Amino acid sequence: MTTAQELLRFLDEDQVRALQDRFGTPLYVYDQATLEAQAQQALQLPAPFGLTVRYAMKACPSAGVLRVLTRGGLHIDASSGWEARRAIAAGVPAGHILLTAQQLPDDFEELFALGVRFNACSLGQLQACGERFPGAEVGIRLNPGLGSGHSSRTNVGGPSASFGIWHTHLERVLEAARAYELRITLLHTHIGSGSDPEVWQHCARLTLNLVRHLPDVTAVNLGGGYKIGRMSDETSTDLLHAAGPIVDELRRFAADGGPRLRLEIEPGTFLVGNAGAVVASVIDVVDTGKEGFSFIKTDTGMTEILRPSMYGAQHPLTVVPREDGDRPLREYLVVGHCCESGDILTPAPGDPEALRVRPLAEARVGDAVVIGGAGAYCAAMSAKNYNSFPEAPEVLLDKDGGFHLLRRRQRLDQVIANESVPDFLL
Amino acid sequence: MTTAQELLRFLDEDQVRALQDRFGTPLYVYDQATLEAQAQQALQLPAPFGLTVRYAMKACPSAGVLRVLTRGGLHIDASSGWEARRAIAAGVPAGHILLTAQQLPDDFEELFALGVRFNACSLGQLQACGERFPGAEVGIRLNPGLGSGHSSRTNVGGPSASFGIWHTHLERVLEAARAYELRITLLHTHIGSGSDPEVWQHCARLTLNLVRHLPDVTAVNLGGGYKIGRMSDETSTDLLHAAGPIVDELRRFAADGGPRLRLEIEPGTFLVGNAGAVVASVIDVVDTGKEGFSFIKTDTGMTEILRPSMYGAQHPLTVVPREDGDRPLREYLVVGHCCESGDILTPAPGDPEALRVRPLAEARVGDAVVIGGAGAYCAAMSAKNYNSFPEAPEVLLDKDGGFHLLRRRQRLDQVIANESVPDFLL
Repeated sequence: MTTAQELLRFLDEDQVRALQDRFGTPLYVYDQATLEAQAQQALQLPAPFGLTVRYAMKACPSAGVLRVLTRGGLHIDASSGWEARRAIAAGVPAGHILLTAQQLPDDFEELFALGVRFNACSLGQLQACGERFPGAEVGIRLNPGLGSGHSSRTNVGGPSASFGIWHTHLERVLEAARAYELRITLLHTHIGSGSDPEVWQHCARLTLNLVRHLPDVTAVNLGGGYKIGRMSDETSTDLLHAAGPIVDELRRFAADGGPRLRLEIEPGTFLVGNAGAVVASVIDVVDTGKEGFSFIKTDTGMTEILRPSMYGAQHPLTVVPREDGDRPLREYLVVGHCCESGDILTPAPGDPEALRVRPLAEARVGDAVVIGGAGAYCAAMSAKNYNSFPEAPEVLLDKDGGFHLLRRRQRLDQVIANESVPDFLL
Repeated sequence: MTTAQELLRFLDEDQVRALQDRFGTPLYVYDQATLEAQAQQALQLPAPFGLTVRYAMKACPSAGVLRVLTRGGLHIDASSGWEARRAIAAGVPAGHILLTAQQLPDDFEELFALGVRFNACSLGQLQACGERFPGAEVGIRLNPGLGSGHSSRTNVGGPSASFGIWHTHLERVLEAARAYELRITLLHTHIGSGSDPEVWQHCARLTLNLVRHLPDVTAVNLGGGYKIGRMSDETSTDLLHAAGPIVDELRRFAADGGPRLRLEIEPGTFLVGNAGAVVASVIDVVDTGKEGFSFIKTDTGMTEILRPSMYGAQHPLTVVPREDGDRPLREYLVVGHCCESGDILTPAPGDPEALRVRPLAEARVGDAVVIGGAGAYCAAMSAKNYNSFPEAPEVLLDKDGGFHLLRRRQRLDQVIANESVPDFLL
């Protein structure tokens, strides 16, 4: 364990205090400079025959974040029809959106007609597409069956994953394509490759072997899942290094007489993970006696950031004193504001049932607590409105140090706006 | 493992199909009869000197559910100022609401002035209350220190819990009370007692020992945490049996010259857990080959019910065919609609990283899947809006078999209503 407090990544202490004062806490803050730098890094991947980088918007779907990333040249990976609608509302051209969804949207036909590109993730989806749009150009998501044997671990690839069409059903894909004269121009095989170049190479080879059976394919999409380091002792995926073997495989495939395939990737966390933070306030400091623990209670928690409670995920925590001045380090457990034993920000790594103290500056009520690495799957995937706390605001830090509101704090009347009580209960 | 499909608890198959048709899926449905029966059971607890049953509304804060339970004679346990506001908006008298919160609300003074009862959960909260309302009547939540030694497991009692004032700080509580002339009339010691009468007895004794130091106390509140069986092979807490020793302890305490203490309890799951279900539809049926699995994909998941993904919680699942007729049983994994490997409805018990197949009626697209035991911590605590899915509606089944909408389905424009994009990004 580190013995120092984690450092702030893109804010300074004065900015943290300014955020507290101007917008109230808790809030999310995103850094435009980091977003743009990560987007540029992804776009530099030296794909030999063209590259499309799609932002997996489920990681953080706020319109302002979508704008920053798509202005930077990214396209969109939408996981639902709702996401596609949201991207269009944020100004993304429909043709820049690829819909890869477990659930075929009710308004699928309309989205397709608008120009949203469609990736069939099951034989049923391919069939539905063929029936409504015979002769269309589509992508298919295949599960190439990575992993050996029968696994019952949750995963995005292999036999225990429901994502995509199982590779041995390829003949049925071809039948459906023939029946409806569909042109399958994109093959998608996201298997959550992580950061290991060897896994990527293996995945690329499986994918290219499948391309041999799909004569119309002009692009392959290998999905996302590139790990980042949030804590100071963790390292982030070197995208260029990790993807190196893919580039080689694509070149070799073309040299062997195969098509010159455009590469698509779909990073989410890689783009936004370390570009975001939660700024919260210390609402209480308590202890359980000499043999117990000291606790910092915050005005955030699983309502804004569920990953620690759900996965035992480690996020950097920094106490920012209300006023400048030296504070000694203390060991604390940090908890959220919900009446819930699992609402913790300092779980043991990978074990949300256990706790691990952190070295933090001595905390007083009113100080800020900054939770780093909170750009991905935080505002997007939280226990929103639990204990009836309203959704927190989102703020963008621009490149000149200015703050811009991307989402207002929700009001209680909005939380209950759709409720009604039948007459007989009044 | 059971070899039959779990049975529906309060719906019949025709009602399930009617819900699909009338409201669309996914939706939550709550059963008025079950809610009222559970409330009546809790109210029958034979407390010798009076009983207040407070519904822990964080379990399911929908106004219609609050109305059913408070019309039945229950008071409210609010975990945040927002919950207190929500209960007041639903017509609950302020004096029936006890606020027991990690976070002192910004509008604390106003809530107190309205008559909301206040339970100080830390020395800081007690101090704040004394400063603003000297001479007031308050409750305190103490952590009686159950468990032996230094534990670093998440819990609501013992040294690893931040809830309530650590028992060895009692002298400081008394000092603050004296300084502000506060009358501490309620002692709260929720430690998540579960279903074991012996644990309850131990907790009751610890609590009563603390009462000896608090001369103004007229009521003790032992919180909630009574387990229910959701699956057919699980049993629910027999509240009367579990609470039997408490009743004895209260009687003995008075017989020994102590005060005649009113008892308060705060059930949540006990009241609403089995009074609710999620009704979803089958959107796809896929497989990963002969050596793999068959999957049912549903239009729900962690967006409506997070407990399986978060805790590996077991909820009964029932496939209801679109039309009457026999369907053979098959073994399935059931997954949600999010692009997320963890969005599963059939985790291994207690292990959300692993999967366990369920015997279910052979499923076809359009069939319903009913997820039972979904009244508590489902609508209240979900990954709402993840993948941009709008919040699902809530429906009440009345005692005559009629359905009433308690919450409309959220619209996408409501999801993004608070968003804005700064001019320089347009």
